[in-house]
Amino acid sequence: MGNDHPDAKLYPHATGAAAKMVKAHQKEESLKLYSGWFCPFVQRVLLVLLEKKIPFQYIEVNPYDKPASLLALNPRGLVPTLSYANKPLYESTVICEFLEDAYPSSTPHLLPSDPYLKAKSRIWIDFVTSRIIPSFHRFLQFQGGESSGLSKLREEFLGKVKEFTLEMDKNGPYFLGEEVSLVDLVLAPWAVRFWVFDHYKGGLKLPVGEEWVGRWKKWVSAVEKRESVVSTTSEREYYLPIYQRYADDVAQSELAKATREGKGVP
Amino acid sequence: MGNDHPDAKLYPHATGAAAKMVKAHQKEESLKLYSGWFCPFVQRVLLVLLEKKIPFQYIEVNPYDKPASLLALNPRGLVPTLSYANKPLYESTVICEFLEDAYPSSTPHLLPSDPYLKAKSRIWIDFVTSRIIPSFHRFLQFQGGESSGLSKLREEFLGKVKEFTLEMDKNGPYFLGEEVSLVDLVLAPWAVRFWVFDHYKGGLKLPVGEEWVGRWKKWVSAVEKRESVVSTTSEREYYLPIYQRYADDVAQSELAKATREGKGVP
Repeated sequence: MGNDHPDAKLYPHATGAAAKMVKAHQKEESLKLYSGWFCPFVQRVLLVLLEKKIPFQYIEVNPYDKPASLLALNPRGLVPTLSYANKPLYESTVICEFLEDAYPSSTPHLLPSDPYLKAKSRIWIDFVTSRIIPSFHRFLQFQGGESSGLSKLREEFLGKVKEFTLEMDKNGPYFLGEEVSLVDLVLAPWAVRFWVFDHYKGGLKLPVGEEWVGRWKKWVSAVEKRESVVSTTSEREYYLPIYQRYADDVAQSELAKATREGKGVP
Repeated sequence: MGNDHPDAKLYPHATGAAAKMVKAHQKEESLKLYSGWFCPFVQRVLLVLLEKKIPFQYIEVNPYDKPASLLALNPRGLVPTLSYANKPLYESTVICEFLEDAYPSSTPHLLPSDPYLKAKSRIWIDFVTSRIIPSFHRFLQFQGGESSGLSKLREEFLGKVKEFTLEMDKNGPYFLGEEVSLVDLVLAPWAVRFWVFDHYKGGLKLPVGEEWVGRWKKWVSAVEKRESVVSTTSEREYYLPIYQRYADDVAQSELAKATREGKGVP
């Protein structure tokens, strides 16, 4: 998934509910997560660790002064990097599936045991990373007004969200039904950041009266209330200066740069 | 992974060794693979099916006259589409992992059972799709001479191949060691197409004397001799007119178009 660290003047640590969660995970543990409080890819991994109550140590990485222990594991120093028995793992979705595999007795299980349903879940997990997130960033980083392309990018983005929503279990509230799964958790970090569009890009403008919008809102409402999501979210005012740089298309994270070059998630 | 069908004047079916393999998989089976003989993403799935000796029915799809049975399963009509108990699956890597999960007694197992090694394998499977293949196509579809950018794209492409090679087991011959795995099989369809660069883009120009090149050649040599690879490869003359269109950057497959727009694997 790559480095999603923000730019200079980054506030140095988590705040609000996330600060409490960080504090509760400072004790030395063999499983260590090298993190950035801002990074939605890190948040994916945190959600899985917290949902499954897997003991881990949270290590905040200053992207301008990366710890030697991280660079020894991962020379590019990207977050999230997981240290497991002193061996590195990276790529957020790979780490999430690894935690499912490596802690089989930790519940809830976040992927169906049925191979067909598991494969379908993976299709939609991949859809989030390969379609929704690049579209989110094309919309967010676009420089221009409604008539010069912004409307079109909003429409494209809402189209991806709609496509995802139409595949949800009819009743929900989660993607697969009553129980939360990895399909929900890989999108949740972005879903709880959709407010950035109201702030910077003239609003998300969910179409009024379309049936899928009701189902989408039901999903968001269930996801944003989960304790794992609440406890990994910092105070909004600290996200603002970082997202301002994305909205102005001057952010220098790997994802911001890839978006600028017209590419997908690096 | 998306549709990699080629363009008009497509030769209608497999030839050579692949024609024999197709003929041997015409009998009705509950597991059906909707295929395009040319498509490397289809070839990935075929390699897994053949390695594991899973019974399946091969159905060649004419992209200009898609069978109703396929469109009923997958309205976009992309190949590969797998029909399993009359339910559709698509995305080549998702299908490959599904076959591992759904046929646990079919050997060889193509992913390590150790969770850490499995996760590492997935990192490099993802690297093939998200780094090597887009780079392969940027190089292949580039319109211009050595000094106007072709050399730079060749260098970028070889850099990705080198990065992959440096992660290989030292002895091999395969990526993980003595046994073939999914890491090998997801790259094999492109590795056996590297000749296109000699044909159209002034040669691959593997750097002489660099240590990794020997390891790369050892890997290629092992992979291209595997029966599964041999028996899914058609005669070269039938690939030529299709790759000509890629080399001229006029191909209309989803992958060709995504490359033209500067994007990754769709």
